[in-house]
Amino acid sequence: MRETDLIRMIRGFAQQLPGRTGLIQGVGDDCAVLRPRPNEDLVFTTDFVIEDRHFTTDTHTAGDVGHKALARSLSDLAAMGAEPVFCLVSLAFPQKLTQPWLRGFYKSLMDLAGRYKIALAGGDLARSERITVDVMCCGRTARGRAMLRSTARPGDSICVTGELGGAAAGLVSKHGPNWLRQKRPQPRIEAGLKLRTIATAGMDLSDGLSLDLYRLCEESKCGATLDGRLPIAKGASLEQALHGGEDYELLFTVAPQVRIPKKIAGLPLTRIGAITNTPRKITLAGEPLRPLGFDHFR
Amino acid sequence: MRETDLIRMIRGFAQQLPGRTGLIQGVGDDCAVLRPRPNEDLVFTTDFVIEDRHFTTDTHTAGDVGHKALARSLSDLAAMGAEPVFCLVSLAFPQKLTQPWLRGFYKSLMDLAGRYKIALAGGDLARSERITVDVMCCGRTARGRAMLRSTARPGDSICVTGELGGAAAGLVSKHGPNWLRQKRPQPRIEAGLKLRTIATAGMDLSDGLSLDLYRLCEESKCGATLDGRLPIAKGASLEQALHGGEDYELLFTVAPQVRIPKKIAGLPLTRIGAITNTPRKITLAGEPLRPLGFDHFR
Repeated sequence: MRETDLIRMIRGFAQQLPGRTGLIQGVGDDCAVLRPRPNEDLVFTTDFVIEDRHFTTDTHTAGDVGHKALARSLSDLAAMGAEPVFCLVSLAFPQKLTQPWLRGFYKSLMDLAGRYKIALAGGDLARSERITVDVMCCGRTARGRAMLRSTARPGDSICVTGELGGAAAGLVSKHGPNWLRQKRPQPRIEAGLKLRTIATAGMDLSDGLSLDLYRLCEESKCGATLDGRLPIAKGASLEQALHGGEDYELLFTVAPQVRIPKKIAGLPLTRIGAITNTPRKITLAGEPLRPLGFDHFR
Repeated sequence: MRETDLIRMIRGFAQQLPGRTGLIQGVGDDCAVLRPRPNEDLVFTTDFVIEDRHFTTDTHTAGDVGHKALARSLSDLAAMGAEPVFCLVSLAFPQKLTQPWLRGFYKSLMDLAGRYKIALAGGDLARSERITVDVMCCGRTARGRAMLRSTARPGDSICVTGELGGAAAGLVSKHGPNWLRQKRPQPRIEAGLKLRTIATAGMDLSDGLSLDLYRLCEESKCGATLDGRLPIAKGASLEQALHGGEDYELLFTVAPQVRIPKKIAGLPLTRIGAITNTPRKITLAGEPLRPLGFDHFR
């Protein structure tokens, strides 16, 4: 498959979706062009998905990879409470990769894009030994309303959406709902949009609760105390719920006087602890909790 | 080097530059946040630089790689006539890569960023067997003023900035000015900003004149006739000027009644032909010119 043929195929997929308001030039030029409206902020994120690091071709179909590549970036938009607008998809792949694989990858990615009506606005293509995907997503929020990591305050409740540890358990069991959760993570876009009206701070859980909470505390210059009542996914262990990555649930904080709803966008919310004023110190049921989540370079 | 240490180093580099107007949240959160002003368009591009495809560690220093990774994306902004605003840098690399290499990479990238006062707003980090960089750049243009590929009209003059074939010649000779041009390409940002007032269409020359001109003609649904007077770089052949990639000069079209300046932003401009109304047919001195430039997948 030559580059021009591949671009033609991608453009075909890209044109299946009605253009999102504001995107006035998509696939085919040197850059995508977005015409922003006043009184809103745009947010941007980019995430790698790399063969033999984030997936293997033995265990993941082309569709799994396309879904996951976009879902990871969308999860970052959810973490900001942003509405998705468009994505750029860069794909490097070895010569042996077949045309059905490429179609399966883009079809699945566009299925997920279609659910949020976001445009595929461009990207880059290259050769590499391992399949390497980098997806950049742009989202929008009302001016000054993005959920940040740096704005949690001592006394705030710490909450999470959904259940924890499922993705890590799926990586071990390789079957059932947890394996599906691992292969096809669902970005919590709707929950993020609703949470930004009540949350003081938020982020997504990509590398495990212990490490991600540590990062939130570091950015907010505070500490945290967890009371030990975690919403552990069926089939997962406490260890997996605390330190397992790729759940892509949302971790957020809420001011103490605010009532926490039981559910939001169909997802259960659980209060798991509170923010303290001791920088970086995190405890679980009184014992120190070390950030043992997934460090990509350990 | 652990991920948190690496992020701290990157954030240090990112904070060396004064924040570009509009960027209200940079490195450290799930997304970068940009607050756009009305009456302007934002443009977005992303480009890979991959070890053993775009460079080798034998021939390119960390600084060469950092420079080239950002320069490739900036060249796409130049091709739209856009002013650079910020970049996201995603880097995947093998464990054996040293801390001095990482410092050299980011230092050189930030040197180039500093020249255009653009912020490093975020990115992603991952492990991979080959060094893989994907740089996303955002730029701005006045509303509706981005230089597109699709707006050339029959009768327009076809022009290029600078000289052609130098980067391809440098790849062979591996010394002198052409080798420097290959390793440290200069994005034509200033020229792009000035050209958008006179050009009808434009793009950057990344994959060779013959292939890139073919792409411009395809987007504009027209053809082209070249008269054979190309500005060939010293030490380069006609073949290299026609089909060699990575010159990162600008290819643009100008309405027939408009006078073409001899120089713009210090760069010579050369009229090399004219747009015709025969879709996709390109001739050089009367003979058909095939698009033999660099197809990444041939």
